Amino acid sequence: MKMYENSVNEDMVALLEKGKKDGAETIWDRTEKMKSQCGFGVKGLCCRNCAMGPCRISPVPGKGADKGLCGATADVIVSRNFARMVAAGTAAHSDHARGIIHLLHKVTPDGDYTIKNVKKLKKLAEQWEIDIKDKDIYEIAHEVARVALDNFGKPFGEITFPKSLPRARKELWRKEKIIPRAIDREVVSLMHATHIGCMADAEEMLKMALRTAISDGWAGSFMGTSVSDILFDVPKATKTESNLAVLEENQVNIVLHGHEPSLSEMIVLAVSDKELIERAKELGAEGINLVGMCCTGNELSMRHGTKNGGNFLQQELAVITGAVEAVIVDVQCIFPSLAELSKKYHTKFITTSPSARIAGATHIEFDEDTAYKSAKKIVLEAIENYKNRRRENVYIPQNQTNFMVGYSVETIVEHLDRVADENEKGTLMPLVKAIAGGSIRGVAALVGCNNPRIKQDENHIKIAQKLIENNILVVATGCSAIALAKAGLASKGASKIAGGSLRNICEALDIPPVLHMGSCVDISRILRLSGDVANLLNVDIAALPLAGAAPEWMSEKAVAIGMYVVASGIDAWLGVLPQVTGSEKVVNFLTNDVEKITGAKFFVETDPIQTADQIIERIEMKRGNLGI
Amino acid sequence: MKMYENSVNEDMVALLEKGKKDGAETIWDRTEKMKSQCGFGVKGLCCRNCAMGPCRISPVPGKGADKGLCGATADVIVSRNFARMVAAGTAAHSDHARGIIHLLHKVTPDGDYTIKNVKKLKKLAEQWEIDIKDKDIYEIAHEVARVALDNFGKPFGEITFPKSLPRARKELWRKEKIIPRAIDREVVSLMHATHIGCMADAEEMLKMALRTAISDGWAGSFMGTSVSDILFDVPKATKTESNLAVLEENQVNIVLHGHEPSLSEMIVLAVSDKELIERAKELGAEGINLVGMCCTGNELSMRHGTKNGGNFLQQELAVITGAVEAVIVDVQCIFPSLAELSKKYHTKFITTSPSARIAGATHIEFDEDTAYKSAKKIVLEAIENYKNRRRENVYIPQNQTNFMVGYSVETIVEHLDRVADENEKGTLMPLVKAIAGGSIRGVAALVGCNNPRIKQDENHIKIAQKLIENNILVVATGCSAIALAKAGLASKGASKIAGGSLRNICEALDIPPVLHMGSCVDISRILRLSGDVANLLNVDIAALPLAGAAPEWMSEKAVAIGMYVVASGIDAWLGVLPQVTGSEKVVNFLTNDVEKITGAKFFVETDPIQTADQIIERIEMKRGNLGI
Repeated sequence: MKMYENSVNEDMVALLEKGKKDGAETIWDRTEKMKSQCGFGVKGLCCRNCAMGPCRISPVPGKGADKGLCGATADVIVSRNFARMVAAGTAAHSDHARGIIHLLHKVTPDGDYTIKNVKKLKKLAEQWEIDIKDKDIYEIAHEVARVALDNFGKPFGEITFPKSLPRARKELWRKEKIIPRAIDREVVSLMHATHIGCMADAEEMLKMALRTAISDGWAGSFMGTSVSDILFDVPKATKTESNLAVLEENQVNIVLHGHEPSLSEMIVLAVSDKELIERAKELGAEGINLVGMCCTGNELSMRHGTKNGGNFLQQELAVITGAVEAVIVDVQCIFPSLAELSKKYHTKFITTSPSARIAGATHIEFDEDTAYKSAKKIVLEAIENYKNRRRENVYIPQNQTNFMVGYSVETIVEHLDRVADENEKGTLMPLVKAIAGGSIRGVAALVGCNNPRIKQDENHIKIAQKLIENNILVVATGCSAIALAKAGLASKGASKIAGGSLRNICEALDIPPVLHMGSCVDISRILRLSGDVANLLNVDIAALPLAGAAPEWMSEKAVAIGMYVVASGIDAWLGVLPQVTGSEKVVNFLTNDVEKITGAKFFVETDPIQTADQIIERIEMKRGNLGI
Repeated sequence: MKMYENSVNEDMVALLEKGKKDGAETIWDRTEKMKSQCGFGVKGLCCRNCAMGPCRISPVPGKGADKGLCGATADVIVSRNFARMVAAGTAAHSDHARGIIHLLHKVTPDGDYTIKNVKKLKKLAEQWEIDIKDKDIYEIAHEVARVALDNFGKPFGEITFPKSLPRARKELWRKEKIIPRAIDREVVSLMHATHIGCMADAEEMLKMALRTAISDGWAGSFMGTSVSDILFDVPKATKTESNLAVLEENQVNIVLHGHEPSLSEMIVLAVSDKELIERAKELGAEGINLVGMCCTGNELSMRHGTKNGGNFLQQELAVITGAVEAVIVDVQCIFPSLAELSKKYHTKFITTSPSARIAGATHIEFDEDTAYKSAKKIVLEAIENYKNRRRENVYIPQNQTNFMVGYSVETIVEHLDRVADENEKGTLMPLVKAIAGGSIRGVAALVGCNNPRIKQDENHIKIAQKLIENNILVVATGCSAIALAKAGLASKGASKIAGGSLRNICEALDIPPVLHMGSCVDISRILRLSGDVANLLNVDIAALPLAGAAPEWMSEKAVAIGMYVVASGIDAWLGVLPQVTGSEKVVNFLTNDVEKITGAKFFVETDPIQTADQIIERIEMKRGNLGI
């Protein structure tokens, strides 16, 4: 692998070269070293679910073992492995949501966390039929939290779905027996079914995985986003900058990386703390510069316009700049390598969550009950480290890109109001009309990760470019949104490369052609958008000209997301081959048969242009079916 | 691998030879075919937790990759893989328990399921501080079920533990932050922590796994057993027979295999149904012969004295007899190979659970709401198949072994009453005195599976023999209990090979030196015994001369069991190497450092005699510490 293959971004390539000189190891070095991947693992044909194994099925018929010791065939093994990925992904998103909801449950008017959006709180309470009359908003908040928490563990009935979920979809899930009962229960049931001697029918296994994934998208993630909005406010359109050039030469640079806004929202307050700024100045810094990264970066940009240092593959490069006093992390997508790498520089690598302690890191557990104090303690650790910066070894790239962020559904509606008829104000009707009229051909969601096996950001960018050129509005979250932000596609100026009709709409609405909708958990905002549009038209989501793509995905969360997207009736494109090719049955179910159940399916396509073409084709097909 | 290495049991060897002639494939054939196991997998060094991988760490320092792409080291990867096994094992046991508790929640006096043990119900209600005054027992049952179900998903506090758990142990868990909050939540948290970019500290990962495992043993399994006793009665000492010789030449033979008593308790009723017996006779059979297998076999033997056909490695051999009309299964430890194998014979292979459908099987979903009718339908399917038996190809072994079964804690107490002082009747005091006096040196639990990589049953038997020779009382569950039953060690006659003081006690109490305490979930009976003895002595469990061993384990449930046993303060011996040897840190934690936390640790020993010697040594050490 050659250096220039690593990233589309020149600054990244320059930092990698610096890293090499510094003797720092990065993920590209490790990818190079892990040259030969296990052929069984790549195909999903390896089973480690009991101690009779590990077993591996030969992908060549007649050569080697065709069954595991228990008799599990390739179909069984591949489907179980895939299901476990869904279980882990759902667990990750939902545990994140659980944390935020627990915060809502203990929120007090004079506490560190307060209710920032009463309107959204009351709306959710009403949706869940909680009596709010004469109740204090904190009382309401606690009741809402209680209902939300019940969705993780309630022993009876089904999950309480949001109103955005079309009735037709819910009834379809009931009919197909894939309607989830409670989030944790679905994860546990799925883990049980993958245990030795349980589910050995690939299609039934995948249907169970769909059920679990639905609980991720429409419950765990959905509640995670809603409650974050209640606690930290609904994001509004804001302009900010991205890429590692946002680091400041004469300030204390703090990179905040991970996922949970409970931490980041306190850190964002702490860096404005007078006492702390004072201390930074005492040490010769001009101030404290907070930089977000990955999904925590998205959360911060969405609500505070905080600058974003980059996506998944940039976490090591941030350290390599030599300009970062601390990388503060909570959970998910954190490279354990940061512990060793940060020791090569002066950077403090601070873990804060009991679920993601990392050997070699400085662990300062973030305590929600004394949140602000706890955040100050963590930030102080960074400030005190400013004096250790070795200025001779600092390299901060110079290219930063402006982008717009903050497109919650509420904010999209506000923008639509600019062109809405009087009786359609406050609704998504203008979007529906633009789609029906054909000036927007459809909406495609670009989501998911970076993956070092793909040149960083390339797929995201190429797909988005082609889609907007073809008048398809792009909504983006997670590392994909950051990729598009860095490439300038999430700026208003990008509408000049959009197709004519999309450009006109973007200009009329004052939005970019790529809407940054937040973190990966915020894909629930896209679900809401889809469901609300479907409800307005009184059709099911599967009928709409929508698409989803994760062109550089890598995490198990992405697998769960793909599954709930398909379960919701939206086609999903994967740019990285999932580990399922060892079973024709599994491949056929995911890319074909599942459509008979959910009205959508997976497409696996590694070429970005082909991906965009396929998306356009399917969107036009759906338009044809709708007669628009 | 030579044929005689397969099993200590001649009949099994004969059946394997028959199978060979019949052209049937068995697990030993597949083991032979899977000759070369993956060296990475065996050591736990392979990571498939994201799509940047699969990654594999070279076990040879300096050669190959020393980290996964994300930077995960061998320690991280091995500990995550191990934790996922604990998550899956806990999920399996606990989902089983959930099913039984849901049954309790909908039980009615005139339904197919009723309350069989009011005393145990009321006792549990009292322990859980449920007001039972003036309440109908069914009302009480529903309230007990409600509290039990809460332990899976309650959002606040800790699990409601049974009184048998010593206070000191609970406080230790609190101090060490390994006290579980809710069963499903722990599984989900553990899955979250194993996700890419989360926990990367092997010891912290294993501590989380301990917490999850505790929720398996002291909540999931414990409640599973308690509620089964309430619904189906507390087992009493009964004599019955084991091994495949229990099949009948002139009857409809039904093998019932799996785990959940909800199914087996209805099948046991259905085979006595006059209408069905009539139909069997019409078809020329003398009657219907129900034979249990594996843990469902244990559940049936415990409560009904149903004959047991054998343990895990005998499921295929049952079909090979040619004398089985149907193998009826629910969940866990079912070979998917039975689908293909049964087609070679006339046997119907019937799956009944939505969590364990098997491609190629006949699926007749067991419906608890019409349980008896549903069970009859399934049994009828077997009966109608009698006419298809090909008598020329039937071989039923002749050697069956008598054994005693049914040793619930309640039944053990009843036996102890024979020698108890008046004021100690109804308590475990006589056992405590026997241990304190030294006539019983200690109590060792033999549990867990068969594993085709070990000569079937050999380890179980050799260890048990040596322990009872050395005056250590053996309590057994699961496949281990069946192994010992087949070997005659669970018969009263076996006390003649026990050491002198143990023999005297066995004779005085009229018990065998190996007490069959039930299924794998019933290891909770052993926890209860341990906790109750500790409470009587006012010491912690870790102080007692107890031991646990899983000498032929294979399932992830066994990993969870091992972890909760060690978490409870009882040393655990494993006869099969767990997939952890790729990390010194993990090995050292499990076999060493964990003792500083829980007061117990793992021993890995493949030699059964060495295992017994080590158990004896540790038990004597604990006696020394207690000054007895």
